[in-house]
Amino acid sequence: MSPTTTGTGAGASSGDALNAEALDLDAQHVFHSWSAQDGRTPLVVAGGSGSRVWDHDGRTLLDFSSQLVNTNVGHQHPVVVAAIREQAGVLTTVAPATANLVRGRAAESILSHAPEGFAKVFFTNAGADANENAIRMARQVTGRDKVVSLYRSYHGNTGAAIVSTGDWRRVPNEYARGHVHAFGPYLYRSEFWAVDQEQECERALHHLERVIQAEGPASVAAVLMETIPGTAGVLVPPAGYLTGVREICDRYGVVMILDEVMAGFGRTGHWFALDAYGVVPDLITFAKGVNSGYVPAGGVIISEAISSYFDERVFPGGLTYSGHPLAMASIVAALGVMESEGIVANAARIGRDVLGPGLRALADRHTVIGEVRGMGVFWAVELVADRATREPLPAAAMGAVKAGSMARGVLPFVQDNRLHVVPPCIVTDEEIAEGLAAIDATLTDIEQA
Amino acid sequence: MSPTTTGTGAGASSGDALNAEALDLDAQHVFHSWSAQDGRTPLVVAGGSGSRVWDHDGRTLLDFSSQLVNTNVGHQHPVVVAAIREQAGVLTTVAPATANLVRGRAAESILSHAPEGFAKVFFTNAGADANENAIRMARQVTGRDKVVSLYRSYHGNTGAAIVSTGDWRRVPNEYARGHVHAFGPYLYRSEFWAVDQEQECERALHHLERVIQAEGPASVAAVLMETIPGTAGVLVPPAGYLTGVREICDRYGVVMILDEVMAGFGRTGHWFALDAYGVVPDLITFAKGVNSGYVPAGGVIISEAISSYFDERVFPGGLTYSGHPLAMASIVAALGVMESEGIVANAARIGRDVLGPGLRALADRHTVIGEVRGMGVFWAVELVADRATREPLPAAAMGAVKAGSMARGVLPFVQDNRLHVVPPCIVTDEEIAEGLAAIDATLTDIEQA
Ligand SMILES: Cc1ncc(COP(=O)(O)O)c(C=O)c1O
Ligand SMILES: Cc1ncc(COP(=O)(O)O)c(C=O)c1O
Repeated sequence: MSPTTTGTGAGASSGDALNAEALDLDAQHVFHSWSAQDGRTPLVVAGGSGSRVWDHDGRTLLDFSSQLVNTNVGHQHPVVVAAIREQAGVLTTVAPATANLVRGRAAESILSHAPEGFAKVFFTNAGADANENAIRMARQVTGRDKVVSLYRSYHGNTGAAIVSTGDWRRVPNEYARGHVHAFGPYLYRSEFWAVDQEQECERALHHLERVIQAEGPASVAAVLMETIPGTAGVLVPPAGYLTGVREICDRYGVVMILDEVMAGFGRTGHWFALDAYGVVPDLITFAKGVNSGYVPAGGVIISEAISSYFDERVFPGGLTYSGHPLAMASIVAALGVMESEGIVANAARIGRDVLGPGLRALADRHTVIGEVRGMGVFWAVELVADRATREPLPAAAMGAVKAGSMARGVLPFVQDNRLHVVPPCIVTDEEIAEGLAAIDATLTDIEQA
Repeated sequence: MSPTTTGTGAGASSGDALNAEALDLDAQHVFHSWSAQDGRTPLVVAGGSGSRVWDHDGRTLLDFSSQLVNTNVGHQHPVVVAAIREQAGVLTTVAPATANLVRGRAAESILSHAPEGFAKVFFTNAGADANENAIRMARQVTGRDKVVSLYRSYHGNTGAAIVSTGDWRRVPNEYARGHVHAFGPYLYRSEFWAVDQEQECERALHHLERVIQAEGPASVAAVLMETIPGTAGVLVPPAGYLTGVREICDRYGVVMILDEVMAGFGRTGHWFALDAYGVVPDLITFAKGVNSGYVPAGGVIISEAISSYFDERVFPGGLTYSGHPLAMASIVAALGVMESEGIVANAARIGRDVLGPGLRALADRHTVIGEVRGMGVFWAVELVADRATREPLPAAAMGAVKAGSMARGVLPFVQDNRLHVVPPCIVTDEEIAEGLAAIDATLTDIEQA
């Protein structure tokens, strides 16, 4: 499908008129997330393919955001679209208590990529409710209630997920008790006065253990962490941090939950980000990349030990669309093409040979870049007003980064003072070159301003 | 599509083998809601059409459950399936911050069925996160934190939704503060020593007001209620109850949230159940019937007053798949066919002329029936061991009700001591006759045992 064929069945309407209608209906009737409702100037997206999206008039952007870092197989992968269409014709929805073949196959496929020792999958609609149910399992299994998560984190929008979240979004939502936050490793803006990664790692582990001790280990059900905190800045942990967390969890009988909602399913050039660290948690939460978000889906991958705890005990959680057939068909197809087309390997190669080196080359030329970090197609570029003080680039300049990038045909992911470079895992060398050129030119403008 | 054509692309496999594979994969890899994992004997569902579902071998059941009371337009409505297929070919997923035409149209269509004074729709993935975000809005707007909901209720599985829930499922999940439960009207098992509906209504309102007064009205953000509590037993409220709740909310500046996740979009023979009571809340939550669950979707319909509060203030909530295009296309199509095919009117007629009278006739013949109540295609039959004491029929007998109904080709919805009779809104007179005959014969067996 190409931009010019993106219709809506309206026939007579020009692309311009459809764009105007989309903006008008949006402003009138749609209430938007994480923002004030006035003063928004949304981008119209009517269609997409691979690494590109376009509006009704065919204006096309290279998608360096993967939307909300979810379209890992790119937009509108034909095999995944075909699988959705086929399942749509057979059975879209069914109650979760039934047995359904495509659901069993989706679970089997997910488990085939998980580390040894994982037994079952509980399906949810998205990432937030995946974390909700992982927390619930941890509380049931331990009989404890506190959850320790990181200040620099995002775990979703529902009750337990939003209070686990560490960033500003937690604050106006802080209505639940039992949540504890700690600081994680982030050498560039260390909370531990560390001078190198080894020291940052050691001190972050010491801090985490002290928090658990001070909270009372007997009250701590779980440690919940993103394997690589994503929205918080692609905070690639130092070697040894996650295995150190595993040891601490073991020492105090705490369930270790790794949130792979953003980092999982190819984003890092591994099936799971945890594969890069040789760490095995008790529960893995996922969403986004599992089916590139083509149908809302998420879930929890459950260790044998935790799964068997519920063999004879009722699990007190559930949802209408758990294991939804249409979502399941999209998972089977998405994981299938990731395997058959080497999409995870592509993300690894792009990160190692193309995007990583390319971003580091930009950092050499642009003093506005404070640090570049990442792997696969999961990168953050810290933009700073001053390299020595690491003072974040102010919001107005970040607005100019976004606008400059869009004007050059690249849809960026801008978060605080950072540019997250997160294209689909199927991105090509040429597309990376095109995107980096746009970023390069934009940063030159910013520096001159 | 008919049962015999439900394939999986496997070609060579017989129906029997596919059923076995579905059961095997399910037992091995799928973790299930609200149950212990061992000792389940799930039904295999491979396909469906209209009011029927079938397994891979073509064994067909009349669906008197609408799965989890969500397939209001029936299984696999061809127009809705076609819309999903079309949108799948154009754009499955997009970030919520964009403007998207089909999303605007879905919001417009939903609002066209809401009472006057509703301005915008916030889209979620399902019912639980709809309630989460409604609660969030109420807390932001009032600056208060407590939510009052009913003991006999179900509002979903995530943090704030599960603590709002009143049934047993809340108890192992009760980790948040700020929730208050009250009793609602339910004359058949009155909590208020009432002798008739008028007294039940008056006393339930008095009780609710006393709870709010005792909690301190200045700390109460919202009253959250299902318009007709569904899972708790299709507890049709007495005339005047909901308008009385509205008055109490107004008196104390409390936001009134009506949960129409199960009752909304045709189930009661009205577009919204609240239409039957002439009550206008501040927020309406929905899911299930809005698109019959073909793609996971839900949301909050927001009054002008609450919506405009966020014109200049940030709303601190959001989710990756808010306003997901594939879900939105299914909403536009499902509401379209409900309009064009008179599906809501059919549900009303069935309830008034066929199903209601049919169930009352059963009650005349079977002493095991304690009460029948409902409207549209939303009915509960209370089964009792003793009509005088109203002692619930024990669990073993309820198991026999379920098994007897299935053996007679009807998929029932059994909850506690009740049979919920909740077929799709498109159900025909003949299908109702067929289902009632199976229930009739099953109850005869039970009474003889
Ligand atoms: C790490 C992580 N966890 C959880 C979530 C929540 O996922 P969802 O928005 O699908 O509920 C996100 C969303 O960005 C995420 O990045
Ligand atoms: C009245 C009501 N509210 C909320 C929910 C939760 O919806 P979901 O399971 O889609 O999260 C349900 C589910 O049955 C419900 O019946």
